Amino acid sequence: MPDRATAAAPVVVEPEGRPFGGSTVPAELDASGPDAAGRAVLAELAAALDADRVLTDPDVVRPYVHDEAEWAEYGTPLCVVRARTTADVAATVRACAAHRVPVVARGAGTGLSGGANAVDGCVLVSLERMTAIREISAGERLAVVEPGVVNDDLRAACAEQGLWYPPDPASAPWSTIGGNVATNAGGLCCVKYGVTRDYVLALEVVTATGEVVRLGRRTAKGVVGYDLAGLMVGSEGTLGIITEITVKLRPARPAAPRTVVGFFDSLADCGAAVAAVTEQGLQPAVFELVDRECLAAVNAWRNAGLPTGAASLLIAQTDLPEPAAQAEADAILAAFTAHGATEAMASTDETESEALFAARRMAYPALEQLGMGMLTEDVCVPRPRMAEMLARIEDIGRRRGVRIATVAHAGDGNLHPLMLTPHDDPDARDRTRAAFDEIIGAAVELGGTVTGEHGVGLLKRDGMERELGPEVLALQRAVKAALDPDGILNPGKAV
Amino acid sequence: MPDRATAAAPVVVEPEGRPFGGSTVPAELDASGPDAAGRAVLAELAAALDADRVLTDPDVVRPYVHDEAEWAEYGTPLCVVRARTTADVAATVRACAAHRVPVVARGAGTGLSGGANAVDGCVLVSLERMTAIREISAGERLAVVEPGVVNDDLRAACAEQGLWYPPDPASAPWSTIGGNVATNAGGLCCVKYGVTRDYVLALEVVTATGEVVRLGRRTAKGVVGYDLAGLMVGSEGTLGIITEITVKLRPARPAAPRTVVGFFDSLADCGAAVAAVTEQGLQPAVFELVDRECLAAVNAWRNAGLPTGAASLLIAQTDLPEPAAQAEADAILAAFTAHGATEAMASTDETESEALFAARRMAYPALEQLGMGMLTEDVCVPRPRMAEMLARIEDIGRRRGVRIATVAHAGDGNLHPLMLTPHDDPDARDRTRAAFDEIIGAAVELGGTVTGEHGVGLLKRDGMERELGPEVLALQRAVKAALDPDGILNPGKAV
Repeated sequence: MPDRATAAAPVVVEPEGRPFGGSTVPAELDASGPDAAGRAVLAELAAALDADRVLTDPDVVRPYVHDEAEWAEYGTPLCVVRARTTADVAATVRACAAHRVPVVARGAGTGLSGGANAVDGCVLVSLERMTAIREISAGERLAVVEPGVVNDDLRAACAEQGLWYPPDPASAPWSTIGGNVATNAGGLCCVKYGVTRDYVLALEVVTATGEVVRLGRRTAKGVVGYDLAGLMVGSEGTLGIITEITVKLRPARPAAPRTVVGFFDSLADCGAAVAAVTEQGLQPAVFELVDRECLAAVNAWRNAGLPTGAASLLIAQTDLPEPAAQAEADAILAAFTAHGATEAMASTDETESEALFAARRMAYPALEQLGMGMLTEDVCVPRPRMAEMLARIEDIGRRRGVRIATVAHAGDGNLHPLMLTPHDDPDARDRTRAAFDEIIGAAVELGGTVTGEHGVGLLKRDGMERELGPEVLALQRAVKAALDPDGILNPGKAV
Repeated sequence: MPDRATAAAPVVVEPEGRPFGGSTVPAELDASGPDAAGRAVLAELAAALDADRVLTDPDVVRPYVHDEAEWAEYGTPLCVVRARTTADVAATVRACAAHRVPVVARGAGTGLSGGANAVDGCVLVSLERMTAIREISAGERLAVVEPGVVNDDLRAACAEQGLWYPPDPASAPWSTIGGNVATNAGGLCCVKYGVTRDYVLALEVVTATGEVVRLGRRTAKGVVGYDLAGLMVGSEGTLGIITEITVKLRPARPAAPRTVVGFFDSLADCGAAVAAVTEQGLQPAVFELVDRECLAAVNAWRNAGLPTGAASLLIAQTDLPEPAAQAEADAILAAFTAHGATEAMASTDETESEALFAARRMAYPALEQLGMGMLTEDVCVPRPRMAEMLARIEDIGRRRGVRIATVAHAGDGNLHPLMLTPHDDPDARDRTRAAFDEIIGAAVELGGTVTGEHGVGLLKRDGMERELGPEVLALQRAVKAALDPDGILNPGKAV
């Protein structure tokens, strides 16, 4: 995922652009005004909500209409409701349900698939002001938060009590827990500690009819009824709007990690090293890959002196208690060396550990210096096929004439090829689009998925159809129809 | 969960007995024969399946008609299909769907809630013969198995490759992975390593129309579409029949565990010790409680010399690498002592560790020696309220005149009060029934759930209604109706 600096760069959406199919995409807010249903909803919202909740001024509304997915279409909302309470959300959905007006929920808008983008005539419900951390319990190892709590804020509050909320998407400094849950966000440490789904215990949800329900449980275990809380995770606002989240926590990790790095001239060697680490039962808490394009960018930006011929860099961290950490670091280092690493080393203290991790941290900022458009992919393949997928990505880039830089969560087989496209170059744009589609196809061919952690949103709808097939899509749609019969919740997204 | 010796004891279901509501329960197979729909299904099954698949002889069918839930009603099936392939299952469901005949799937029948019990006129699909372990991959850390694979068999096969499948219900020597997934089984080590749900990556499922679909993914991560694989976990055969399971594995644990025990004279002290362990960030891999009734039974059976006045025994195991295990064991021991343990000790070697764990292992066999009927409860409360729940259980037992022995997964707040009832004593039976209901009510009052790991089946339907409330039940039923519109899959169970 791009760092904020990328994300904050202006998102260029051309008025005529419908890059991935779908309806007409107005670039500016629609001047024709709301229709009868829209006017009725606006009147009901004005009656039901405090005046400061409902935003209709186009200049104020504009920043809310899309997330950070480059090239994903977006429409013109009726208004933005900046909810402060569950009651605000419920009243909004009830008004929309009564008039069959679409409702699109959003957190911080850091998504990369267009899942939070406005559709024409919708009410955008922003949950950014619902920022209360209602409870952090060491005895129950859980936290109860409103959806607008920023991931890093929750993590900091937990740390104060010796607790840890592991999911750490790259957007953690800005993205919200509600958005993380709605997209089942991943991150660096999910290779060992799992994704958002693994931490959600319970949810308060506003349903498609505007009812408020509590799903899941507060207890450590529970198997009563279908796992509807789990079903909501990753559903991208299409089954309900999440207004409170109860997450499991872990005890804080005591040790600073040890970091091991290895440079590889060959992708095959690099893949073999990743496989060896997995097969030997090692469990790095972070296991990342940075490809040759990223390394070149970091060298160019910071004169970092990284090996210029390297095809890739692997970076692993272990967080076991000592001396097990030392033993695990040694074993990872041995695996890197045994599988052809041209240079490999392990940190002996925290400063060294930080230094060895720097190339990963610098990758995105370095790529941003190139001043090009960046379209982020998010495919995930079975771990043993990661090197093959990387080779395919390089080949696709070469054949299509697209510069692609890849960062990967190597231990998960989750790759983020970043397609770099010159601005104002329609031909380059077409080639990028073709490369994007081809990468998706390659991931499916290798037994992988078209989205490892970013979500389907708008950009991966076609890919989802390719991956799941008609029977499973029909089941998905049946579930959607059961919980949102009128299709008002984030229509056109995900399913 | 009771050990097998308990489970194998004859389940007494009286012909007139409808202990928890529901339809008439015939004790013997119905002699009146199938109706027209039933005859049509039998004819289609005879045409579609090999002759050895379809069982209709009442003596052969009888062992299949119920699971191990005492007092749960069961009906008379049309036949049993002992499926060997997914195609067998699909053909069976298609025949049933065509004639709206109910289908009830079962694994080993070790369930404790009646979830696999026959309903009148159903086709029972037994998956016990689908026992292939199709794949175990160290590189992908996953296994692909048929549903009839016995839990312990999978664990043994994984161990041969240095891998570990953690979910370990007490039924692991007999219960199947398919059944474990259908009920989202827990076990001892889920306090640290999670329940079955946390290990299911993908499922092959036969839908209510007899279609074969693949849900979930093989990759480490993936967020494409709704999590229908997760939805199937714990759905007790009411949404589909699981015919193949892909589970995540962990590396085998290198060390033998260290065991720490503490005896407590007061439930409040014991609860405080459990809370202290959690609050200090310790993570025992097993954290069990054995109550005074169990201790007395073990003493009576084996003259074990356990402290006679003790209200409870806590048993914790740590599986960290040394010397972290030593440090964690010391910290747990200190917590036990600081919170009033009258005796407490930690193992220094494997033999001692086994010896300290013996009281837990002996609890169920010792209770069986009493020769009484045993009804197992399965409530789960927030961890800090476990001692309060235990006190309530003791009080309920006293007031109702029911002998209740409790084993608990203390670290999860998951209690298994075992109600001991003399055979052929209708009055004692009524009192037990009342105690069962009262315990369920108390768990809900304390913010807990009516089933931590056994499932709803038949015995917890009323409890589920109390716990979830009408709005959430309506959502559950909407999902059921979406995926099984004719209601043929395990009707009357779970939802």
